[in-house]
Amino acid sequence: MNQSNNLIEDLVDALRCMPGIGKKSARRIAYHLLERDREGARHLAGRLTAAMDQIGHCQQCRMLTEKTICDFCSQERRDPTLLCVVETPADVYAMNEAGYKGRFFVLMGHLSPLDGIGPEELGLDQLATLLDSGEVEEVILATNLTVEGETTAHFISEMVRARDIRTTRIAYGVPYGGELEYIDSSTLTHALNGRRDFT
Amino acid sequence: MNQSNNLIEDLVDALRCMPGIGKKSARRIAYHLLERDREGARHLAGRLTAAMDQIGHCQQCRMLTEKTICDFCSQERRDPTLLCVVETPADVYAMNEAGYKGRFFVLMGHLSPLDGIGPEELGLDQLATLLDSGEVEEVILATNLTVEGETTAHFISEMVRARDIRTTRIAYGVPYGGELEYIDSSTLTHALNGRRDFT
Ligand SMILES: [Zn+2]
Ligand SMILES: [Zn+2]
Repeated sequence: MNQSNNLIEDLVDALRCMPGIGKKSARRIAYHLLERDREGARHLAGRLTAAMDQIGHCQQCRMLTEKTICDFCSQERRDPTLLCVVETPADVYAMNEAGYKGRFFVLMGHLSPLDGIGPEELGLDQLATLLDSGEVEEVILATNLTVEGETTAHFISEMVRARDIRTTRIAYGVPYGGELEYIDSSTLTHALNGRRDFT
Repeated sequence: MNQSNNLIEDLVDALRCMPGIGKKSARRIAYHLLERDREGARHLAGRLTAAMDQIGHCQQCRMLTEKTICDFCSQERRDPTLLCVVETPADVYAMNEAGYKGRFFVLMGHLSPLDGIGPEELGLDQLATLLDSGEVEEVILATNLTVEGETTAHFISEMVRARDIRTTRIAYGVPYGGELEYIDSSTLTHALNGRRDFT
């Protein structure tokens, strides 16, 4: 992240903070912006700064948002008796596009003791407060269908059942090992509709 | 480019000014930066603004640069008797990495009468001035091995030969229809070494 005396090389290096962008892609993007879309690049710079400075986490569901309470939590038309627990903000959008109409809770990860990610890091105390409010009648566990996602789902299901609230898991319409973010909406819709009580 | 009342969606839209970045990739990048690399994103915003505001074209070779005369033109160790004509700034880097040690001239495109791109748009008057300076002894035509690149090479070869300067074309080591930017360096090295007089 040092600055050389060459603005193009600086830009190429800076672009590599984006996942999936290697040196060649970064150079292609830099030239494209310089030759054909300086206005778009300036706009992007402004949006990056605004987003990084102003976006934090929703105080209710931990979704990324610039507000105290995010749009998903404040939309009155969303069913407050349903709570869908997901790993990442991208999963919120994926579930929403698949037709889910309830509220969300975003773990921002999954249990991973070796990396020091336990219940506290996933905001499970905040989830407990939400469950204790008495509004939630069903918790849909929509963590990834991976080993870590399953472990996390099991852990949360204990918390939920201890409060006599129904727990369901999205159906195995999602291929095993699959990550929600990359699954098409219709598969996700099937998985949502085929959800079953968590055992 | 309108701004919504949602900074994340604004950022996702803004990221799409980059070639090859669709809605899904843009969202993935936005979340990655927000969750894991805000510092990198802020740095990128600064580099984007600096590059877009300060980078123009080299007055000698038309390469993108923030200086009046670019690094390639001002490096004394580069052989001033060799002039390599390429279509884009990316091609300059590709040729340089393939071991080319002379000077460059960047057309910033190729002849395309239907799109209104003629000799003037490619800066051929500037190229003529360069050739008339008397320093250049060989012009290596390294436009793409496409129909448009060949047409452009032919056109320029006439200009060069009218001044009694040797004209060569990089060899067909590059696959036909290939674009220099995507060719590995060793293929480019062969193509450079196997260059022949332009006929
Ligand atoms: Zn929220
Ligand atoms: Zn130059």
